[in-house]
Amino acid sequence: MSGRQVSEEIQQQLKAKVDKLQLKPRLTIIQVGDREDSNVYIRMKIKFAEASGVETERLRLPNTVTEKEVIDHIDRLNKDNTVHGILVQLPLDSVNPISTDKITNLVSPDKDVDGLSDVNAGKLLHGQVDGRSCYLPCTPNGCMALIAKSGVKVEGARAVVIGRSKIVGSPMAQMLIWANATVTVLHSRSQNIPDIVREADILVVAIGRAGFVKKDWVKPGAVVIDCGINAIPDATKKSGQRLVGDVDPAVADVAAFYTPVPGGVGPMTVAMLISNTVDSAERKSKSN
Amino acid sequence: MSGRQVSEEIQQQLKAKVDKLQLKPRLTIIQVGDREDSNVYIRMKIKFAEASGVETERLRLPNTVTEKEVIDHIDRLNKDNTVHGILVQLPLDSVNPISTDKITNLVSPDKDVDGLSDVNAGKLLHGQVDGRSCYLPCTPNGCMALIAKSGVKVEGARAVVIGRSKIVGSPMAQMLIWANATVTVLHSRSQNIPDIVREADILVVAIGRAGFVKKDWVKPGAVVIDCGINAIPDATKKSGQRLVGDVDPAVADVAAFYTPVPGGVGPMTVAMLISNTVDSAERKSKSN
Repeated sequence: MSGRQVSEEIQQQLKAKVDKLQLKPRLTIIQVGDREDSNVYIRMKIKFAEASGVETERLRLPNTVTEKEVIDHIDRLNKDNTVHGILVQLPLDSVNPISTDKITNLVSPDKDVDGLSDVNAGKLLHGQVDGRSCYLPCTPNGCMALIAKSGVKVEGARAVVIGRSKIVGSPMAQMLIWANATVTVLHSRSQNIPDIVREADILVVAIGRAGFVKKDWVKPGAVVIDCGINAIPDATKKSGQRLVGDVDPAVADVAAFYTPVPGGVGPMTVAMLISNTVDSAERKSKSN
Repeated sequence: MSGRQVSEEIQQQLKAKVDKLQLKPRLTIIQVGDREDSNVYIRMKIKFAEASGVETERLRLPNTVTEKEVIDHIDRLNKDNTVHGILVQLPLDSVNPISTDKITNLVSPDKDVDGLSDVNAGKLLHGQVDGRSCYLPCTPNGCMALIAKSGVKVEGARAVVIGRSKIVGSPMAQMLIWANATVTVLHSRSQNIPDIVREADILVVAIGRAGFVKKDWVKPGAVVIDCGINAIPDATKKSGQRLVGDVDPAVADVAAFYTPVPGGVGPMTVAMLISNTVDSAERKSKSN
């Protein structure tokens, strides 16, 4: 299942939505420093936004910026009515001590289109997932869209999430619970992982280990979503490496649906970010 | 395993802690209306607080109070430096429309000793469970204390939580995940519940159905924590009813540890509330 293709469908839907709005949705991306991987991700986000009719503003702060200065920028953007979404690109690349946790939580919850603030995570834990009351974090929300696209019946299904990170695994499990799946969370301290994975009708993997999930762990006909992005050596590439997921691609032989890396979850994460931004603008438009 | 006994041990520890503080911990309980069950719970909380050296203030508001008036009280208490914990007794018993969700979230996160605000829930989902950065909700935190007391090794254990409520099931699952258990969440839409329960080394039940979990569902030697409180008819009682849990008491024959209802989780919930209040006062004392 191509995440790229699904994300393009979403892009068309967003564009149609934006065309009907009285205002122009606007996303501000704050970048501290100049990490090359961040540059790549930000370019992808801007490209998708533009194709969806969403304005972007990229605020580049030098790596000498202080925490206080970043906070002042966020305060200003929180108050700016023309800005509907604020994204702080992580990780922060600064020579000064800046608390990622503090910064993330200073973004106003109603502009937190990344869904990473404690308030939005709390609403998720509390089951307020109707799409109006909170922003869902983009990667797990993208996985949910792929799962929906697969056609699998989520209600009553056995779902297994491998990984418990705050950005992917933990919110993913909670989103599947509220979608009425029976959810098991596995992580680095879990035992008998292959046996438990074999029970999954829906398997989402975000543990950060190249090719961790093997073909013979997967129930035939399962839906397998791979959130991993791991660089492994590859002498045939100019860069000397290539990106692979957390799932052995041979899993495609037994799974009913399997998302490749790259081109699976990645594009969906970007699509969900822009979707959250358009939702924010739409709410703003209705409240005017 | 008697929750009453464990809660009394905690009471002694809290009292020793309070005796060393420069200030007197203080908890304000806001009660809207006059529900009899709320009166019973509030009396238990006040009794435990007093025995622990914690001052309480019970703010009784008539059922004609408006949302605005409740909000004004919370604002005042948030600003009052002598108040370390604010508890809004639920459910609200009012003739006026008052949003429980709104009220709960207006309590300052650093005085939210019930741990019910979105911010505190978000910190839990994000794994900030060190006891300094957030208040954990009282019932699941009480269950964790009982599980610790049972001596079972939580890390790597299979844990099953039945129920996904915002007050018990969902935060309980998340707390077990951060304690390194492999956690499965079951709920009303789950299938094959008995088979999945049989795999549990640790079983926490909060589904609100009298005697739901049967003896033959439980793995011999498991730790079973019953959060249920259900009234069932009993002609031998003056009131015509009695309280039972979500677990058939016959489970005690196979479980290594089993918490009875009443006298299991209930007293622990109260103990954790007062423990959070003492922690709040201690933090305040250190920041002075």
